[in-house]
Amino acid sequence: MTQSTPAADKLSRRTFFSGSAVVAGAGGLVLGAAGGAAVAAATAPESVSEADRLAERASLKYPFYGEHQAGIDTRPQDHLVFTAFDVTALTAVELQLVLAKWSAAMSELTSGSPVGKVQPEREQGIPVDTGEATDMGPQGLTLTLGFGPSLFDGRFGLEKFKPADFADLPAMAGESLDPDFTGGDLCLQACANDPQVAYHAVRNLARMARTSVRTKWTVLGFGRASAGAHQATPRNLMGFKDGTRNIQDPADFSDQVWVGEEAGQPWMVGGSYLVARKIHMLIETWDEDPIGDQQTIFGRSKKEGAPLTGTKEHDVPDFHATVAGGTADQTVIATNSHVALTAHENNNGTKILRRGYNFTDGLDSVGRLDAGLMFLSFQRSPEQFIALQRKLGKSDRLNEYIRHVGSGVFAVPAGLPAAGSYYGKEFFA
Amino acid sequence: MTQSTPAADKLSRRTFFSGSAVVAGAGGLVLGAAGGAAVAAATAPESVSEADRLAERASLKYPFYGEHQAGIDTRPQDHLVFTAFDVTALTAVELQLVLAKWSAAMSELTSGSPVGKVQPEREQGIPVDTGEATDMGPQGLTLTLGFGPSLFDGRFGLEKFKPADFADLPAMAGESLDPDFTGGDLCLQACANDPQVAYHAVRNLARMARTSVRTKWTVLGFGRASAGAHQATPRNLMGFKDGTRNIQDPADFSDQVWVGEEAGQPWMVGGSYLVARKIHMLIETWDEDPIGDQQTIFGRSKKEGAPLTGTKEHDVPDFHATVAGGTADQTVIATNSHVALTAHENNNGTKILRRGYNFTDGLDSVGRLDAGLMFLSFQRSPEQFIALQRKLGKSDRLNEYIRHVGSGVFAVPAGLPAAGSYYGKEFFA
Repeated sequence: MTQSTPAADKLSRRTFFSGSAVVAGAGGLVLGAAGGAAVAAATAPESVSEADRLAERASLKYPFYGEHQAGIDTRPQDHLVFTAFDVTALTAVELQLVLAKWSAAMSELTSGSPVGKVQPEREQGIPVDTGEATDMGPQGLTLTLGFGPSLFDGRFGLEKFKPADFADLPAMAGESLDPDFTGGDLCLQACANDPQVAYHAVRNLARMARTSVRTKWTVLGFGRASAGAHQATPRNLMGFKDGTRNIQDPADFSDQVWVGEEAGQPWMVGGSYLVARKIHMLIETWDEDPIGDQQTIFGRSKKEGAPLTGTKEHDVPDFHATVAGGTADQTVIATNSHVALTAHENNNGTKILRRGYNFTDGLDSVGRLDAGLMFLSFQRSPEQFIALQRKLGKSDRLNEYIRHVGSGVFAVPAGLPAAGSYYGKEFFA
Repeated sequence: MTQSTPAADKLSRRTFFSGSAVVAGAGGLVLGAAGGAAVAAATAPESVSEADRLAERASLKYPFYGEHQAGIDTRPQDHLVFTAFDVTALTAVELQLVLAKWSAAMSELTSGSPVGKVQPEREQGIPVDTGEATDMGPQGLTLTLGFGPSLFDGRFGLEKFKPADFADLPAMAGESLDPDFTGGDLCLQACANDPQVAYHAVRNLARMARTSVRTKWTVLGFGRASAGAHQATPRNLMGFKDGTRNIQDPADFSDQVWVGEEAGQPWMVGGSYLVARKIHMLIETWDEDPIGDQQTIFGRSKKEGAPLTGTKEHDVPDFHATVAGGTADQTVIATNSHVALTAHENNNGTKILRRGYNFTDGLDSVGRLDAGLMFLSFQRSPEQFIALQRKLGKSDRLNEYIRHVGSGVFAVPAGLPAAGSYYGKEFFA
């Protein structure tokens, strides 16, 4: 069983609420409890209230079991809670218990249920679920689990399960990593259309494992919240569209995102590697840069997001076009612009799936905006990210305005086939 | 002209997208650019895509000019950015300029426009608007401005404009205020259905005044994001519904929220007082409290939110009902429960309009969840809040699980009558 593919997502986006082909067109989508109401509403427009529409949105549910984990090729939801954990368990059995409990609870949470099949009704029962997402619906929640390289360091006897060449990211030019936002034995990416649902999920997973794992770092993300008529591609906090050339083609997923036999680990076949980079933007400085210079740096226009060789956002950049009367190296799109440096045309066809979110932590210690991009990318090998980032770190003109302050790389196992299975089960056979 | 009243909001919630009475039923609502599309979509269900629905939501626009500022009796939007500022201006004229620029920009922002009528197209122009909300629509954005007591301290010659009895909140039992999250000469409450739109608005207002004001503290809030079929009242991070008995009746707004002649300041007639309290929840401790005890503390059931003397959320609490066989002081709803202490029946009819949001700042220095409630209330006099909070600080059983860490009180001037007017204009006549 495959989970929602990008094609299905694109289809569902157009037809999910259309009143025709609600089920047939929805691909991997499963309607939740309010699904019936959604269909009824779509066929009886006079009864479509905003409350109904919110209920439809709340009922959006992605399948938990499947070939791949959800939250990778799933159309990005509006909100993110990303959390990395250190495992404090002393034994492999204790780790095994965490992974088994989490797998079962992730299935409950993504279906819109509280954790724990039965909530205590007794007066003296301690709440199993903390309750703040009660009756809110699944809200398109996906929970994606990853294992950091340190999980395989020998504490739990897992050395032989470490994928080939899986290691912490090498030091990169221009980064200034804060140890408090770097690494982790485990990570969870929670994405949902409601921030409270995403927060509730991570909070409850952390809570049920609190004697065995310790939260190391968390980033809350927003900025996928609008895909209105003129807003298919969201904007980062520099004001530029971000994600225009992202992976969409299923062939690219097979080639560039899903791990195959090469990892040497059956549990990673159908999995992926997640790179997380907390990127602080020097926003006040950026805001004083002239628009022309900002556009040169990105290689795109600010308002439309078109490559500087085109007029529309999705025009294909021409990296060879030269300025009028210019020589061959006087290209319209600067060779050290962000779009030129990252384009697959200039990187032996390498692509990565970006799935980042904007974040803000308020103000820093000297009163500047503490904000930026929680960059998340999925790729078949960490080497894809490393090669691209090495180039960016060396040449990208954006470096003047950004600083990588947090980092992690995680092996994201394949999806679970069915209830009763759990992530990492192979480790404990 | 009155802005959207609660009644109109309630009406609009039911009829806004209903295909009939879209304009007539919407009260103070104004449809933005995509409004026509919304009507068309409602009458032609086969064309209603999720993108269309998001566009309708994005186009929600509240009038900026009116008797009262928007963002008070406006139905709470999904997201909050609350920011308090210190004025660093050295002269009254400089402050006047900030207030005039802000008033004009607030009008632009709430209509979904960037700040500054014309964005520079020249290559060397510095961006007037930072751009990250371009084409996202107004998203129901409201911007509500308040003046702190310190603004009237004499630096700007405004002593005589200080409302009667307007002063910093007195010290309260059980609070543990952090000076970095307390006070401010000015505040802005930005609420919108998209967090990026709210963030963009505050960011750009702060930016255009950066030589005259300094951001003092900021809280980002969520938790009004879902009002699904079963979720009319949102839940706080303790898992309980919050806001069940909130003010809705227009008569209550007149009596309890809008300032009259008593303030002794014409600029406050039609205004209100905003109390902001950043309330940290001791969540890990709360989560270990048995459900029965949690319910006793609130005086309500956790799942339904019903008073302990009733079965449905909106049942009126009976504060005199006693437990079976109990004496008169053995009430079903404990007299020191949160609902009993705050009920208007037990406070000489005092009500306050609550408009808070959940927040989370990630983890505190020892790895616990740093999260809670950004309590915002509007009232005709700060004394309403002070009297209630004095009672709560003394007796509320919730005090074991919460800590007030930030605080501010602000005089929120009346709405502006029309373009060309600006907040505080009376101060500089």
